[in-house]
Amino acid sequence: KTWREIPPLHYSEPDWVALHKRPSDPASLFEPLTHKIYIELPKPTIDDNIPDTGRIVRELRKRLKYLSYEIPLTCLQDLFLKIRRSDWKITVTLFGRNGIGQILQVEEGNTVDRNYGVALDVGTTTVVAQLVDLKTGKVIGIEGNHNLQARYGEDVLSRIAYVCGKGSLDLLQKAVVENTNILIETMARKKGIQIEDITSMVAAGNTTMSHILLGLMPCSIRDDPYVPTVDLYPPIRAKEIGVHINPQGILQVLPSIASYIGGDTVAGVLACNIADRPETTCLIDIGTNGEIVIGNNEWLLSCSASAGPAFEGGDVKWGMRATRGAIEKVEIDDGRVLYETIGKVKPRGICGSGLIDLIYGLAKNKILDIDAKLSHSLKEKRIVEGENGLEYIVAFPEETETGEALTLAQTDIDNLMRSKAAIFAAIKSLIDYAGLSFDQLEKIYVAGGFGNYLNIEKAVGIGLLPDIPRERIEFVGNSSLMGARMALLSNHVYEKAIAISQSITNIELSKFALFADEYMASLYLPHIDRERLFPSVKF
Amino acid sequence: KTWREIPPLHYSEPDWVALHKRPSDPASLFEPLTHKIYIELPKPTIDDNIPDTGRIVRELRKRLKYLSYEIPLTCLQDLFLKIRRSDWKITVTLFGRNGIGQILQVEEGNTVDRNYGVALDVGTTTVVAQLVDLKTGKVIGIEGNHNLQARYGEDVLSRIAYVCGKGSLDLLQKAVVENTNILIETMARKKGIQIEDITSMVAAGNTTMSHILLGLMPCSIRDDPYVPTVDLYPPIRAKEIGVHINPQGILQVLPSIASYIGGDTVAGVLACNIADRPETTCLIDIGTNGEIVIGNNEWLLSCSASAGPAFEGGDVKWGMRATRGAIEKVEIDDGRVLYETIGKVKPRGICGSGLIDLIYGLAKNKILDIDAKLSHSLKEKRIVEGENGLEYIVAFPEETETGEALTLAQTDIDNLMRSKAAIFAAIKSLIDYAGLSFDQLEKIYVAGGFGNYLNIEKAVGIGLLPDIPRERIEFVGNSSLMGARMALLSNHVYEKAIAISQSITNIELSKFALFADEYMASLYLPHIDRERLFPSVKF
Repeated sequence: KTWREIPPLHYSEPDWVALHKRPSDPASLFEPLTHKIYIELPKPTIDDNIPDTGRIVRELRKRLKYLSYEIPLTCLQDLFLKIRRSDWKITVTLFGRNGIGQILQVEEGNTVDRNYGVALDVGTTTVVAQLVDLKTGKVIGIEGNHNLQARYGEDVLSRIAYVCGKGSLDLLQKAVVENTNILIETMARKKGIQIEDITSMVAAGNTTMSHILLGLMPCSIRDDPYVPTVDLYPPIRAKEIGVHINPQGILQVLPSIASYIGGDTVAGVLACNIADRPETTCLIDIGTNGEIVIGNNEWLLSCSASAGPAFEGGDVKWGMRATRGAIEKVEIDDGRVLYETIGKVKPRGICGSGLIDLIYGLAKNKILDIDAKLSHSLKEKRIVEGENGLEYIVAFPEETETGEALTLAQTDIDNLMRSKAAIFAAIKSLIDYAGLSFDQLEKIYVAGGFGNYLNIEKAVGIGLLPDIPRERIEFVGNSSLMGARMALLSNHVYEKAIAISQSITNIELSKFALFADEYMASLYLPHIDRERLFPSVKF
Repeated sequence: KTWREIPPLHYSEPDWVALHKRPSDPASLFEPLTHKIYIELPKPTIDDNIPDTGRIVRELRKRLKYLSYEIPLTCLQDLFLKIRRSDWKITVTLFGRNGIGQILQVEEGNTVDRNYGVALDVGTTTVVAQLVDLKTGKVIGIEGNHNLQARYGEDVLSRIAYVCGKGSLDLLQKAVVENTNILIETMARKKGIQIEDITSMVAAGNTTMSHILLGLMPCSIRDDPYVPTVDLYPPIRAKEIGVHINPQGILQVLPSIASYIGGDTVAGVLACNIADRPETTCLIDIGTNGEIVIGNNEWLLSCSASAGPAFEGGDVKWGMRATRGAIEKVEIDDGRVLYETIGKVKPRGICGSGLIDLIYGLAKNKILDIDAKLSHSLKEKRIVEGENGLEYIVAFPEETETGEALTLAQTDIDNLMRSKAAIFAAIKSLIDYAGLSFDQLEKIYVAGGFGNYLNIEKAVGIGLLPDIPRERIEFVGNSSLMGARMALLSNHVYEKAIAISQSITNIELSKFALFADEYMASLYLPHIDRERLFPSVKF
């Protein structure tokens, strides 16, 4: 697969596009997962000789609101020396949860300026991390790499098959931990900060990725009745799974909803603020599994559709992730193919947004018919007979980096059509289940690995997204990473994540009788019921 | 020192004398620190496919009253396999605290009959453990050994000096952990139970012993202003300090009150039920530090007197602990000395209760005057000139195991007098501080390492204990071990221990102006103010 061969991802700017897109800002609830507080303790006297811990807690109570405080043994064991060496001036790192302040570490002197966190999006294909200054809430670094688990299987199901067959959970866990450690070390090195000053992390991933990260067997996730081990992951010490941050540092994985709806979706719901508004909105996360959430501040529905990896560059011969050299925009005009690549270099493949543009362009130019089939009869010079049937030449050999023609075969198109049909049918099924119509959606947020670009008009045009006024559809990029960062910066948001995961009603599409019909009806460009469902699409 | 050379302690009967002495029984609040519950889970279906943890918690909620449940990562990691291998029939071990049920382990099948706990009294000289069946609450084993820390120093102060001077905390911690592991392994082997089936422990010790056990520096305990690191010790995994029980097993150290008033005293207050009754009672724990608590269900006062080890066999040439070969009863009648030894063997030394009897006998027979001095002028054949002054021959060479005369020298008597004076002065000071008189004490409980015997009449006679009606004085033996066992068997009792530790007002005798006067007045037999304070003593 092309996407397995491409070099490590690079993001040029810390402030990624998606960071600006959130409808409302949680800054007013800034309360990071771990925070530091500097205190100067009054020295003990014979009239005030309470224990060291009591002295610390007495000072903390003046400034913080926790009901009680806990100190783990490791932290107690060096307290005596630290507190005296520093002349009773110390910085306490706290992790607050359920009204309890857990003291993670005591440092000598004032170190409140050095407190960092990591937000982590554990994707099946890509792992992306942000380094966040927990004092200010600012993102100061971002790095991504390809999930090293890929060597054991390309998608979630093949990895589950590996772990639960002859393979080893341990190998897969170590792989993603290595991903994570590389990202953290790279970000820390670039910013010149110490790993020990990273005191917390929030990770979001699908249920399988979250399970494997924590060393939990994912075997029952794939089989009916689709039961994971856990949905509310406990906060752990990152070192428990081998992640290198502060030895007492906390790792919180965002809660899952069901076997096929993970913490990444919960993060998306947080990022798009779906659960806090009276208006009904929708989140569509397009990936190998397309996850859809519809709801408002009174109810939330979700479902997951097995869409396949076509829009992520898998199952498509020249498909690739949205990285340097990928065609991300395409226009077909009078026999000419105009395209733009990421990095403005010679094309190496086509990413999801390019594929959507391409299908749209082929349909609009009647090169694809309503059945999405290429045909010789068109006398189109770009249509040639390939190894496995007809192919459309997107870029001729002299245009590409490899010197090979960059083509889209009928088999590729079929895979893309199946993906888009699965996603649209899932949206339609969920809308029907809720008793709504599309125009009752105030907003549709589209997330997924499309890089920085998605042409909404064309995504509607091919029947991937519902035909509602375009200004009500918004591309939000990596909403999983954004939600993880929000939970890192606000315990309030993390608590909301739990509430969301526990209150969403998940619909198993396999049990939903009409889904198969919707899917069949969606295998057309844009849809078999174009007049009713896609009235505004013109080609 | 004699007591360092004697062989390991042996207790012949699991139901030790002290176990029967508690005024009220906590059986009605039986709620062990860790408990097991067997559950048969309904198997998941597509209509009921919540995660494994949710399925367990749903079942637990039907039977238990915790507000929430926590599952540590290690327990989650093998949950998938265990739950399925056992066909959804599992036993869950829980540790409950503050309304939260922490799931420590999940076992396949029904193992509720195999759940044990250990109560541990970490004495400076002796470590004693009880093995308790947590299903029934019954004591099924008891073992004791000499604290291996003795090789680094005989008493608390010399061990602190070792740790905080050129020595190592680590060595002392390892020593007492070795004590503990030997006791646990011995008890488990004798009863044929698996170490893994011991799921919790409660330890009581003085503040220094508790600190060293947990690897906490005790250095600031010895010096003004006497500040320990912590008073409320957090519950830990026993394995964190190297104690061998179940790998997830909990170790809870009972809270301290102050640097010189430890969890052993809190345990004594629990065991004697001092804090729950409207009547004012008193606990006197006679040891190297004599701890005294006075109070009722409205207030509690404590103090600690540096008594020296004389009543424990230290600082007395032929002194020894209350083990085999120790003279524990003495009567002097018309020039003859009648005595009984533990084990009915030839005497090897004299333990605390024997020393009390001996001083009493010497005083009653006018061999000691009111100043507690031996005198040649008495023409008593048992008084001889020893290496360091006059000595009284308790047993002639032909009577003893060693073939040497067993004597009590004037220097021994002086040390014993200083010990008894320190303890009585402390009691008197505390009573005065409270504005009470002795006859307002409904009960005095006497604890300490006197073995199974203490002659109350004689202890009053020498001025060690106050002159109140004898039936109101009760010897309770090792109240520290008893209190630890009670906290092991009842979370309610443990919570009471916290309440006690936080509500006791500790009086620093060094700050109490009249203590020195009381001490000087107590250096007499029985007291300089005999008429007023010891009217019933007749000799």
